Amino acid sequence: MPDSSLSGGDLALVAVVLVVSLAALGFAAYLVRAVLAADQGTAKMRDIARAVQEGAAAYLRRQFRTLGVFAVIVFLLLLVLPVAEGGWETRVGRAIFFLVGALFSASVGFIGMTLATRGNVRVAAAARGGGYQPSFRIAYRTGGVCGMITVGLGLFGAALALLLFDDTAPIVLEGFGFGGALLAMFMRVGGGIFTKAADVGADLVGKVEAGIPEDDPRNAATIADNVGDNVGDCAGMAADLFESYAVTLVAALILGQVFFGSVGMVFPLLIAAIGVIASVVGILASNPGKNDGSGMAPINRGFFTSAAVSLVLVAAASFIYLPSLSDGVDLSVSPQVLGFVSVFIGVVLAAAIQQLTGYFTETSRKPVKDIGRSSLTGPATVILSGISLGLESAVYAAVLIGGAVYGAFLIGGGAALYAVALAGCGLLTTAGVIVSMDTFGPVSDNAQGIAEMSGDIDEEGARVLTDLDAVGNTTKAITKGIAIATAVLAATALFGSYNAQINVALEEAGETLGDAFSLVNPNNVVGAVVGAAVVFFFSGLAISAVSRAAGRVVFEVREQFRTKPGIMDYSERPDYSAVVDICTKDSLRELATPGLLAVLAPVAVGFGLGIGPLAAYLVGAIAAGTLMAVFLANSGGAWDNAKKMVEDGAYGGKGSEAHAATVIGDTVGDPFKDTAGPAINPLIKVMNLVALLIAPAIVGLSVGEDANTTARVLIALGAVAIIVASVVVSKRRSVVVGGAPSTATDGTLKVTAP
Amino acid sequence: MPDSSLSGGDLALVAVVLVVSLAALGFAAYLVRAVLAADQGTAKMRDIARAVQEGAAAYLRRQFRTLGVFAVIVFLLLLVLPVAEGGWETRVGRAIFFLVGALFSASVGFIGMTLATRGNVRVAAAARGGGYQPSFRIAYRTGGVCGMITVGLGLFGAALALLLFDDTAPIVLEGFGFGGALLAMFMRVGGGIFTKAADVGADLVGKVEAGIPEDDPRNAATIADNVGDNVGDCAGMAADLFESYAVTLVAALILGQVFFGSVGMVFPLLIAAIGVIASVVGILASNPGKNDGSGMAPINRGFFTSAAVSLVLVAAASFIYLPSLSDGVDLSVSPQVLGFVSVFIGVVLAAAIQQLTGYFTETSRKPVKDIGRSSLTGPATVILSGISLGLESAVYAAVLIGGAVYGAFLIGGGAALYAVALAGCGLLTTAGVIVSMDTFGPVSDNAQGIAEMSGDIDEEGARVLTDLDAVGNTTKAITKGIAIATAVLAATALFGSYNAQINVALEEAGETLGDAFSLVNPNNVVGAVVGAAVVFFFSGLAISAVSRAAGRVVFEVREQFRTKPGIMDYSERPDYSAVVDICTKDSLRELATPGLLAVLAPVAVGFGLGIGPLAAYLVGAIAAGTLMAVFLANSGGAWDNAKKMVEDGAYGGKGSEAHAATVIGDTVGDPFKDTAGPAINPLIKVMNLVALLIAPAIVGLSVGEDANTTARVLIALGAVAIIVASVVVSKRRSVVVGGAPSTATDGTLKVTAP
Repeated sequence: MPDSSLSGGDLALVAVVLVVSLAALGFAAYLVRAVLAADQGTAKMRDIARAVQEGAAAYLRRQFRTLGVFAVIVFLLLLVLPVAEGGWETRVGRAIFFLVGALFSASVGFIGMTLATRGNVRVAAAARGGGYQPSFRIAYRTGGVCGMITVGLGLFGAALALLLFDDTAPIVLEGFGFGGALLAMFMRVGGGIFTKAADVGADLVGKVEAGIPEDDPRNAATIADNVGDNVGDCAGMAADLFESYAVTLVAALILGQVFFGSVGMVFPLLIAAIGVIASVVGILASNPGKNDGSGMAPINRGFFTSAAVSLVLVAAASFIYLPSLSDGVDLSVSPQVLGFVSVFIGVVLAAAIQQLTGYFTETSRKPVKDIGRSSLTGPATVILSGISLGLESAVYAAVLIGGAVYGAFLIGGGAALYAVALAGCGLLTTAGVIVSMDTFGPVSDNAQGIAEMSGDIDEEGARVLTDLDAVGNTTKAITKGIAIATAVLAATALFGSYNAQINVALEEAGETLGDAFSLVNPNNVVGAVVGAAVVFFFSGLAISAVSRAAGRVVFEVREQFRTKPGIMDYSERPDYSAVVDICTKDSLRELATPGLLAVLAPVAVGFGLGIGPLAAYLVGAIAAGTLMAVFLANSGGAWDNAKKMVEDGAYGGKGSEAHAATVIGDTVGDPFKDTAGPAINPLIKVMNLVALLIAPAIVGLSVGEDANTTARVLIALGAVAIIVASVVVSKRRSVVVGGAPSTATDGTLKVTAP
Repeated sequence: MPDSSLSGGDLALVAVVLVVSLAALGFAAYLVRAVLAADQGTAKMRDIARAVQEGAAAYLRRQFRTLGVFAVIVFLLLLVLPVAEGGWETRVGRAIFFLVGALFSASVGFIGMTLATRGNVRVAAAARGGGYQPSFRIAYRTGGVCGMITVGLGLFGAALALLLFDDTAPIVLEGFGFGGALLAMFMRVGGGIFTKAADVGADLVGKVEAGIPEDDPRNAATIADNVGDNVGDCAGMAADLFESYAVTLVAALILGQVFFGSVGMVFPLLIAAIGVIASVVGILASNPGKNDGSGMAPINRGFFTSAAVSLVLVAAASFIYLPSLSDGVDLSVSPQVLGFVSVFIGVVLAAAIQQLTGYFTETSRKPVKDIGRSSLTGPATVILSGISLGLESAVYAAVLIGGAVYGAFLIGGGAALYAVALAGCGLLTTAGVIVSMDTFGPVSDNAQGIAEMSGDIDEEGARVLTDLDAVGNTTKAITKGIAIATAVLAATALFGSYNAQINVALEEAGETLGDAFSLVNPNNVVGAVVGAAVVFFFSGLAISAVSRAAGRVVFEVREQFRTKPGIMDYSERPDYSAVVDICTKDSLRELATPGLLAVLAPVAVGFGLGIGPLAAYLVGAIAAGTLMAVFLANSGGAWDNAKKMVEDGAYGGKGSEAHAATVIGDTVGDPFKDTAGPAINPLIKVMNLVALLIAPAIVGLSVGEDANTTARVLIALGAVAIIVASVVVSKRRSVVVGGAPSTATDGTLKVTAP
């Protein structure tokens, strides 16, 4: 490994990067002031917004309390888990940075969501009288806060670790990445279950049974639905993109050190710092102009401006900084070309995924139109065409992502994995803008909900909010695609780091790898099958958790209709907080099983079957995870828009049989696209990070003096036992799927409106 | 590699095996006579049966004509494709045995189906007056013919190749396996599209729109539906199990030769010959007795008797024959133990999968009950709970199969792959019985259809046929699970053969493998992602093909209701043959794209990216394929039985909203369980065999004197171009998804009954 202590000049550069990260946080603070300065609308709007704020904050507080306990346990485990290099101070540093990563991840989610629940009402207020431009600006800038905090905190953590720990920083940063990814995964799963339990539950009772429209204040689940948008789409997604950002940087630093020493570590930080500048420019460029044809125009302008600024600056950085790259590695191209082209590949991939996702989920394109038309033959053909669309689109996305990895591999030569990691960094130079785009979605969705529920909105304003909501749906779908791509690049790079760790550990034990990593060993094939299986299992668990929780919501809302007959004629107020409470409790309870599975399955495979099957496990998980994530996201997105298409008047419009068929498709798609699908991103990174963290321990127990098969088998069995116990406990709860049969054993489902 | 020319004693043994294979065919002939001797029922029954016979035979004839052209092209390609060992006579032998394999596969399908279309009416006739035992016996023996032909022809081909080609037999048999697998895949896909297009189309127009029951003679799609049961579930499944059988034997022979020379090749044949005896005993043991509690009792008795006989005889064969095993390989156990335990693992796996599948798909168990209950909250929750059940059950099956492979790996030591192949042989010692069980399904399903349509059945007889149909549903689900397990074991073993081929080819070129097969190379990660992607793509294509073809069936049946108003009051006869014709044409047209994808994707990856990514591609395909196949099969099976549960009176019974919800679930499940899911079995074997066949050519173009990157890239691009062109053409056809909009643009779907 090349010398990797930082030179004085490099230290100065990293200090500059640290300052840039603080500047990003400063810009976020500026945006916060701008958003909060806007008008808060009518008293009714403020009332509703406050209920959403309180529900969302209460959920997050409770979630953090639960996860805090878990984080402390992991912290203690990390203190005793051996590190591949460095002494006790590295180990302690890694454990502390784990807490820092978890804290940052939680903070990004919390701050982003807190502001989103304040931005939404201001967007609604600004829309009154048809103020398209101001409400667009508030919504986008609310997202911008989230975006700038994401990149600011991610970059701050990485730069700080490098300044404090110098050449052992990559190991310390494993903890940082793991903390971020673990928290993000739990927030994704928990928030995803919350939001979809409320949404599906509200739709099933409201639209399907009671025949009242979406966001109708008579539905006891509406506030929970709006809370869900914030804790799922907003807090969950922000934490997820934060961890993508952090983990990609971590992987690049680890591999940079392996291949090029200190220069290899500093370069990714420079790219990220450039990303901060590019994001600021992009956010400022996204103001809607008078000549913009559609709502997507300013969004796209922001993205492409940001990408262009990044590319120019990265080119400069590559050609100024990289010639100093030590050349111990066999490169097929010059280091400058390697650096620039890798980042370029990442930027292009982001743009390509954006186009592809748009094609498969926009109302104006053929795939969604085909699904819409299939509604003429009923719900079954809607489901079937959505599933086949999702399966096929996953393939195109996988081929694009695979093509990017392969391109980086070709350009990278002997440092192929580093090139992959740099491509990941390239993908995330536009992270600030991407997070802004994404948060735009739930904020405008909520704004519409608040306006609708309050009734304090004129026709012009309602039209503005509908337009913003449609734009938000598209941006949400697009960022999902990009999030998956970052996850795959980060996981592939992390996976390379796993290999590097194993080799270091084996070297210390005086052993070599041999053919342990050979694809054709039958035990490795088993590892790959198990890795793919965990992705399927995780998805199945997430979907069934939503069904279960939604069943309880349905039951509660039905009960309220029954016990408070005045709800239907507005003479009684439904108890919104009861539903929020159910969603909170259930989502926290339900996230345990998928969470434990993600953390413990690699432990079971690694200690039980060995380092080869664990490597194959990760490959299986990456392959299946990529496809499953895109499949679930795109099927769900396409169903959602097929429904919108019919609601806009196609095939009979609202109330037609075609509409009923697409509503069913949308309901099936809800947990696909907002619970299971997006949670797969952090899942594959958490599993790779767990593998990275336990690699030295597995090698230690497998070879050399400390070899202890009994200990290995016991650890593996312990992990399996916890997973099985958790699954069994969650199955016990499955009795309430489909609502409480006691209320509807006669097969009739309609709630009789008084 | 050990010496692998056959000794005189071994030759004699193989000759005995050849005789056993002919005896199996003889027993099949005996069963044919027994079935045909039974009464053919009333004139009306015979009429209907004849229509089904003609439709089915016409379809297969047309399919074979189309596939014949394709087979000749592949034959010519095989003549020029280099072989790893042996001269031109090996190459010609391989090409000829390709044709033989294809012919055998087609014959098994054709003969099995022909007899099934004759057995069905006899089962219906025997049921009249409540003849449970005779009708059960006819249905099971009809299946027995299929089973005995499967094992007879498979064993005959393998033994013949060994007698004719001695130590180059494994290479010749690659052709045999490929021919069988390729034909089976096409028959699976084509038959699967046919049967589900007819079934879904019939249900959508009949049950959902016109409100007439299943198998109602007024529905123009009913005959096509019955034809579909035969060409899909019967011909397709028989060909599939034939190729599983043949391919497993081929893999065992290849690996046996690599590790143990001639003894390693002869032992798998002995196991297969024992399987013939066990199957005969099992089929004879399946007569329903007076004390049998349920219809599954004789079926299970047949299976377990067969398994027990196999185990005893295999133990004897291992301990008598295997001590002569040359011991150049580092084994951790004695060869006798290796042989017996490996086969034992396979037999146990078959039994375990049977139990597991039963648990997830039987009406009396919790999972299906949960889905049934979810029908109270409508179709969306039925779909969601079925999907999460499928995803979860796939994991348990994958862990079981993975456990079997890992067990074989542990026992196998230095010959781990051979142990995996032997476990595959063990799984198939009961093949005769398994095929009988499976064919039992469509035969009894058809018998009920014929009885219903003819009206010539008394109440007692109807009850018998309903019971038989329920038993058939369960056996069909179980055999699907076993078929997937055999596919995975065979594919894993084949994958090992790929490695062996590559090593031989590299050795000849004076090269070594290096770390080309290392899991952690980023290009190999890309290969794995692409491999998993092909499984997703293939599934998506198969499902959308069914949607498209079903749309056309719906259109045709609607047209007939419109233009022949007398159909509803029985005064006019619908034109059944028009629907059969649509299904025939469409399924043949639609099978091209998935078929080309399966054959050409490995070509593109292998020549384009190299031998490492191709190996990873196969691993990705095996991992994703295992899970996807079980997911699709079990979701579909569970929805089917949840519907039956409601039809039997739960949650409001027939006509309730719960029933409508489960009918939608069943319709979604139809192409899952009968088109896409089962076609994945031959898919993963076809891809492994293609990799095996092109391995020497890839190595030849990559290293040594003949290295030619341009040629490699051109071949890869050519393969990609054909796939893309085929996909584009099939997308052109997608305009008719959801039926013809011109007839129903107003959103109303009901066909007005005159």
